[in-house]
Amino acid sequence: MLPEGYSIREVKASDHLPYLESLKVLTTVGEISKSQFEELVEYWKKNEVYHPHVVANEKDEVVATGMLLIERKAIHECGLVGHIEDISVAGHQQGKKLGYNMICTLAEKAKQAGCYKVILDCSPHNVEFYEKCGFKNDGTEMVKRF
Amino acid sequence: MLPEGYSIREVKASDHLPYLESLKVLTTVGEISKSQFEELVEYWKKNEVYHPHVVANEKDEVVATGMLLIERKAIHECGLVGHIEDISVAGHQQGKKLGYNMICTLAEKAKQAGCYKVILDCSPHNVEFYEKCGFKNDGTEMVKRF
Ligand SMILES: CC(C)(COP(=O)(O)OP(=O)(O)OC[C@H]1O[C@@H](n2cnc3c(N)ncnc32)[C@H](O)[C@@H]1OP(=O)(O)O)[C@@H](O)C(=O)NCCC(=O)NCCS
Ligand SMILES: CC(C)(COP(=O)(O)OP(=O)(O)OC[C@H]1O[C@@H](n2cnc3c(N)ncnc32)[C@H](O)[C@@H]1OP(=O)(O)O)[C@@H](O)C(=O)NCCC(=O)NCCS
Repeated sequence: MLPEGYSIREVKASDHLPYLESLKVLTTVGEISKSQFEELVEYWKKNEVYHPHVVANEKDEVVATGMLLIERKAIHECGLVGHIEDISVAGHQQGKKLGYNMICTLAEKAKQAGCYKVILDCSPHNVEFYEKCGFKNDGTEMVKRF
Repeated sequence: MLPEGYSIREVKASDHLPYLESLKVLTTVGEISKSQFEELVEYWKKNEVYHPHVVANEKDEVVATGMLLIERKAIHECGLVGHIEDISVAGHQQGKKLGYNMICTLAEKAKQAGCYKVILDCSPHNVEFYEKCGFKNDGTEMVKRF
């Protein structure tokens, strides 16, 4: 259950600054202008891979973010896999089950879309959080940075 | 270096059976008809997220597969991230550096496209292979299956 008045919805072009503010708990966001953000949200909406969501507070301001990507594969009889990316809960809003609700909502959307699984990568100190959301360790994330 | 006559190219609709055969070293593939495969390849080609590649032998038959997804994010100033998926080398072709060449090619394509990193998930017994390809451990993959 979300706090009174809070909701989970798709991101809107007008979410610009609070959306970027929430993401800052994750990593560097950098300068992204209003028009760049609008173009990005437009791009996400036009491409059916992307399902970008937010938690909004009682004033409809973004306080948490979460992206679901739905990938079409060949394996598992042309199976679909959900990828959860960029989960962030704004600092002063952490510990209110917003992260938990976002993950459950994205996982449920992946299931409804017909995905046979949903996966995500996290750092070791967040494994317990994702276990509480019903996820299990399934492998190792490897990276090459440029 | 690939063996004499081998090349890395994009998948084609006509790659149907050898493409599926190669994937079988990874997991269950199931029944995918010629027309289903053609539709999938068409879908991949129309959506700019997907960059599906194969290694072809001297007869232009598929002997290995590898998918690169390019994701547009908000973080890192609207950064791009490459995701490598479904790397397979047909059983009788393993150990000829086809996997290594596929990974280096997909990582280079991600770099050329402007990605700030490329990531993939693997099982513990393949970590050493990906380390030889220049990747480092960066986190834990978590899954929820439906
Ligand atoms: C990690 C994060 C997404 C969790 O969201 P949240 O809204 O603060 O957490 P919730 O209130 O939904 O927590 C749900 C449960 O997980 C627990 N939990 C939350 N974060 C945890 C952590 N890092 N380690 C262990 N348990 C954690 C909570 O205590 C709660 O447990 P309970 O049900 O027993 O009370 C959020 O704190 C965050 O954005 N952190 C910084 C950025 C980050 O690390 N993102 C994830 C990248 S992989
Ligand atoms: C794992 C796989 C992709 C490797 O491809 P490959 O073409 O057989 O391997 P390469 O010839 O390119 O190997 C490159 C180097 O990695 C080493 N290597 C390959 N697989 C390895 C493994 N599983 N563990 C440790 N080292 C490995 C090779 O010995 C070689 O080392 P060298 O350069 O010192 O001689 C391939 O064997 C395969 O498809 N296996 C089954 C499916 C699978 O596990 N896919 C990956 C899912 S995460």
